[in-house]
Amino acid sequence: MQEIKIFSPATVANLSCGFDVLGCCLENIGDEMRVIKNSLQKVRITKITGQDLPMEAENNVAGVAVISMLEKLKEKQGFDIEINKRIKVGSGIGSSAASAAGAVYAVNQLLGTPYHAMELIPFAMEGERLASGNPHADNVAPALLGGFSLVRSYDPLEVISLPCPEDLRMVILHPLIEIKTKDSRAIIKQSVSLKKAISQWGNLGAFVSALHTNNYELLGRSLVDEIVEPNRSILIPYFQELRSISMESGALGFGISGSGPSVFSMCRGDEDAIKVKRAIQNFYENKGIEFDLHLSRINPYGIKIL
Amino acid sequence: MQEIKIFSPATVANLSCGFDVLGCCLENIGDEMRVIKNSLQKVRITKITGQDLPMEAENNVAGVAVISMLEKLKEKQGFDIEINKRIKVGSGIGSSAASAAGAVYAVNQLLGTPYHAMELIPFAMEGERLASGNPHADNVAPALLGGFSLVRSYDPLEVISLPCPEDLRMVILHPLIEIKTKDSRAIIKQSVSLKKAISQWGNLGAFVSALHTNNYELLGRSLVDEIVEPNRSILIPYFQELRSISMESGALGFGISGSGPSVFSMCRGDEDAIKVKRAIQNFYENKGIEFDLHLSRINPYGIKIL
Repeated sequence: MQEIKIFSPATVANLSCGFDVLGCCLENIGDEMRVIKNSLQKVRITKITGQDLPMEAENNVAGVAVISMLEKLKEKQGFDIEINKRIKVGSGIGSSAASAAGAVYAVNQLLGTPYHAMELIPFAMEGERLASGNPHADNVAPALLGGFSLVRSYDPLEVISLPCPEDLRMVILHPLIEIKTKDSRAIIKQSVSLKKAISQWGNLGAFVSALHTNNYELLGRSLVDEIVEPNRSILIPYFQELRSISMESGALGFGISGSGPSVFSMCRGDEDAIKVKRAIQNFYENKGIEFDLHLSRINPYGIKIL
Repeated sequence: MQEIKIFSPATVANLSCGFDVLGCCLENIGDEMRVIKNSLQKVRITKITGQDLPMEAENNVAGVAVISMLEKLKEKQGFDIEINKRIKVGSGIGSSAASAAGAVYAVNQLLGTPYHAMELIPFAMEGERLASGNPHADNVAPALLGGFSLVRSYDPLEVISLPCPEDLRMVILHPLIEIKTKDSRAIIKQSVSLKKAISQWGNLGAFVSALHTNNYELLGRSLVDEIVEPNRSILIPYFQELRSISMESGALGFGISGSGPSVFSMCRGDEDAIKVKRAIQNFYENKGIEFDLHLSRINPYGIKIL
């Protein structure tokens, strides 16, 4: 195979109770990428459309992810990477993860799949390290694996795929304001009260159990974050109002997507999700803030070949 | 029904990654209790064998639990409670929980079950409040419900029953030294680093998923506690050696039971559990510390009527 074209999905990380360990994969929001073998023994970013991003491979999340993988494989083959960037940078729905995960996925395919999807995670994390200084796995893992991913441990890295109740829908509001992941991380306190931490792991345990038992109401009740949300939500215009509107319109739960500014409303079924989406639209369109609004299923497969 | 005799089981709370939210029920270790309706419109503790405990109902964990339940029911009926205390006080395997949960269970039966088992938890927690100053649910819940219980939230109280892989076995070592729950709680820092908290909720999420998928190895890997164990383990003689011996003998994981001094080795199947038990016995019997050593299945039903 000389070239490959793929769709690399957006992802929602953290999901309230799962800060830094939990993420899920979206279906109809994502980048398109084309990766072509070259004969130059180097990785090049040859085209980027949709967003303004670095063209030097060593300075591009897709580039560094692929370079780290080729180094590990001691592979000399070079690749040209074209990115049609449809996930906006800084949106909080895994823009850097989609590029990094998509690139390593594509190269892995072109090299005859020396790695399983799970084994690609550490390489994609190198893209995250470049993007935010923090090589987190909670976006790249669900992008590569689909569905819900839980990072049990970073040292050694262990990621667990969790089951996904079929009727789950995500409504994603992206207010077009810029919050850099770096800044959004800086606002987080590095020490937490034991009491709040206990509450957080109680909720995460319940969320995981609810995924296994298709318990939609429990999923919603478990979407609680007393640790990060109180600080980060300040950066998101009308956060509390958006929560109220979502819940009143039938959402199961509501929270910040990744490091924001996107927020998610988790819903059961299309009917409720459409109602929630409409209510958010009505509320937000007179606020003087431009925004994108998405409704998506959970994507159970992750990246797909086009 | 005029009287009832029950078996109220020992329980293992915390389970490393689930501090204050997780517990499981043991099968062959527990108290026997007899509760008889009296015509005095009051709750009396009429007999305690096996351990030296307060006979005044208002000062006894079983007594206060029943009193709180009768107050809520506006019930005038009086009860005599006899306790054959076979779980040692201060063992760390839910001694106070067995008395409190057993008493409310028995009285509920004698009153024609006005409450479901789940609804009895708050009354039993009043016993825990008396015992340790902290009305925690992670022992009384598994005593009442059986299997594994997860406390998602204390306010409002929500407890979730988790499935239990059939081959799980627990080897419990109780070194006969005294650590009061109050003292053992005092040693815990009330603030934790975010990094360690994240690691804890990653492990708890994985543990819950492993219970749902019968993944024994993952259960073992998830039994990690960076938050409480480093402090509490100091109070337990030969803690690190016990861990090494357990793991080398085939245990899935090892940790502190409740607030100690008991420790548990989680094992898969009788053969491994017997090996672990023997190795612990050989190691501990020359250390000049008296001890009890138990091997138990997980009890899926909780309290049972005799």
